[in-house]
Amino acid sequence: MLGLAGIAQGLSFRFLDPSPEAPAAAVGTLVTGALDDPAALDEVAQGAAVVTYEWEGVPADSASHLVAKAHTVAPGIRALEVSQDRAAEKALFQSLGIPTATVANIDSRAELDAAVAAIGVPAVLKTRRGGYDGKGQHVLRAPADVDAAWAALGGVPLIYESFVAFRRELSIVAARAADGTTACWPVVENAHRDGILHVTRAPAPGWTPALQAAAERIGVGVLAALDFVGVGCVELFQTDDALVANELAPRVHNSGHWSIEGAQTSQFENHLRAILGRPLGSTASRGVSAMVNCLGSMPDTDAVLAIEGAHLHDYGKASRPGRKVGHVTLTAENDAALAPRLAALLAVIDG
Amino acid sequence: MLGLAGIAQGLSFRFLDPSPEAPAAAVGTLVTGALDDPAALDEVAQGAAVVTYEWEGVPADSASHLVAKAHTVAPGIRALEVSQDRAAEKALFQSLGIPTATVANIDSRAELDAAVAAIGVPAVLKTRRGGYDGKGQHVLRAPADVDAAWAALGGVPLIYESFVAFRRELSIVAARAADGTTACWPVVENAHRDGILHVTRAPAPGWTPALQAAAERIGVGVLAALDFVGVGCVELFQTDDALVANELAPRVHNSGHWSIEGAQTSQFENHLRAILGRPLGSTASRGVSAMVNCLGSMPDTDAVLAIEGAHLHDYGKASRPGRKVGHVTLTAENDAALAPRLAALLAVIDG
Repeated sequence: MLGLAGIAQGLSFRFLDPSPEAPAAAVGTLVTGALDDPAALDEVAQGAAVVTYEWEGVPADSASHLVAKAHTVAPGIRALEVSQDRAAEKALFQSLGIPTATVANIDSRAELDAAVAAIGVPAVLKTRRGGYDGKGQHVLRAPADVDAAWAALGGVPLIYESFVAFRRELSIVAARAADGTTACWPVVENAHRDGILHVTRAPAPGWTPALQAAAERIGVGVLAALDFVGVGCVELFQTDDALVANELAPRVHNSGHWSIEGAQTSQFENHLRAILGRPLGSTASRGVSAMVNCLGSMPDTDAVLAIEGAHLHDYGKASRPGRKVGHVTLTAENDAALAPRLAALLAVIDG
Repeated sequence: MLGLAGIAQGLSFRFLDPSPEAPAAAVGTLVTGALDDPAALDEVAQGAAVVTYEWEGVPADSASHLVAKAHTVAPGIRALEVSQDRAAEKALFQSLGIPTATVANIDSRAELDAAVAAIGVPAVLKTRRGGYDGKGQHVLRAPADVDAAWAALGGVPLIYESFVAFRRELSIVAARAADGTTACWPVVENAHRDGILHVTRAPAPGWTPALQAAAERIGVGVLAALDFVGVGCVELFQTDDALVANELAPRVHNSGHWSIEGAQTSQFENHLRAILGRPLGSTASRGVSAMVNCLGSMPDTDAVLAIEGAHLHDYGKASRPGRKVGHVTLTAENDAALAPRLAALLAVIDG
């Protein structure tokens, strides 16, 4: 989607991906190689105006390798380091006065026992590194779950994290330019299923300027603290009285895909504008939108396209259970017009 | 732009172009070859679900070659034949009761003299075939201009066409599915400069349902008469009391480029939907739009992107005087918001 946005702007791309089947090959030159292979990194970066990433799992050392060779890497190394380490991420949020779950770093069974005693249950044991889409997590609902949790995850650095009694999950996607200018899209509401994003509503139902301002303080604060250049996302929990930061994604984010049709400027275009030093575009929404992920396989094309306001995105990936292979964004003038379209779409996608 | 729209839909493309520099290479496999080279045609069509074209200069024999080999070619051969021959085009309009300029076929100097006597001046002598963007035309403002016009164009089949005293130029872009379903975008207003489209306003200022209905009768009537499948455009003159058909473009059209951001479904996506037998998407406009062509070279990127609602499209073509190398679409809520943006954009593009 970055490539599609960029080609329209006259840009050209090389992509580094471990898989020769990577869909990005449709919109640029694909370099097949490991993300920590110096030769592959050099090949993909050769002559590029800027190097960026759209996965927080890219090794920070790979970014350092390129920076050492005088390449410009955006959003930057620090954003990768922080988002790859749940402990560092939470520490950053807390250093900025942003509410988070109660967390404890866990490097031993003894530390886990102590954390369970101090923080209680229910709570979640998570790997500090490498988890995404609900992977690398184990929920403790009773103290007796400690054994199973330790058996599942023990041996690598972990954190133990209290459950947040949230009303709903939100996220704020923000673009930040090198000069510190920022532009945030409207706060969105995210519904997950089995730990994977299922539906995003944009703007979040019940959106208010106060909610937007609160979310922007968090999103802009985090990006500024990282001297971030590009588009990033902070996932939030909305409780009865606050917004609680959950995770930082230092990249264009699934909860921002709606912006392709639903905003004046998409997250993909603004990411490219930011990392190229171009002026950011307006992040204002155009009507209301809902994005539904297609997991495992694509839904029936004709059934989706028959729905008013439906915009199909097929990533060209092979089907595989749970894999994000595409998404559909619905646009409408208002929530009343959106509701029946969303119901129809969910009926098609969820079957 | 067809490729960009199609990749998002999970489609893949091969393109046939005489130039190895064709920008389409960024979004598919480029087959370099003449448009009438049977081997190149076979190569590009091999295994394709459907073959389409986005230039009316594609030889109708090439389409026939592919149809003879059992390929599906849309919009179809007849649409090419008619749009390549100004006399056939005008005859089609007239057979459908659609007003046109007064025309006479000219195959000799004597016929030209007779036509000038019958139709008068000012009028335009045009080649029946091969003209576009104002090329292959000679304006006669006085009977004495006959010698110069004949010297410029004589020797090939011509038509002599009366001037239409029009208030403005409009166009109707329509999508037609194989089952006869049609969807028309709002009528747009086109301003030309030196015979080349300069600015399109969508919907046309002063748009009314009656204007839309009149234009759709023409657009849908022409496509239906050709059993057309895909997106086509009829260029119109608006006179004090009627719409007069000027030309048929059997393809996605420059005056429909605004639809990428300005309509629920772009002309590119709907063309692909139509030729693949998928349901057509809504052609409703989203607010108001203005599209400005970039001729010769691209304007300053940052200056364009600093304008609210500006969407830059850089085709990745080398600069050349008069060449369409890109366009910018402005979107806005209403005409009042659009006006200052358009003024700012024209100042950047026209310098």
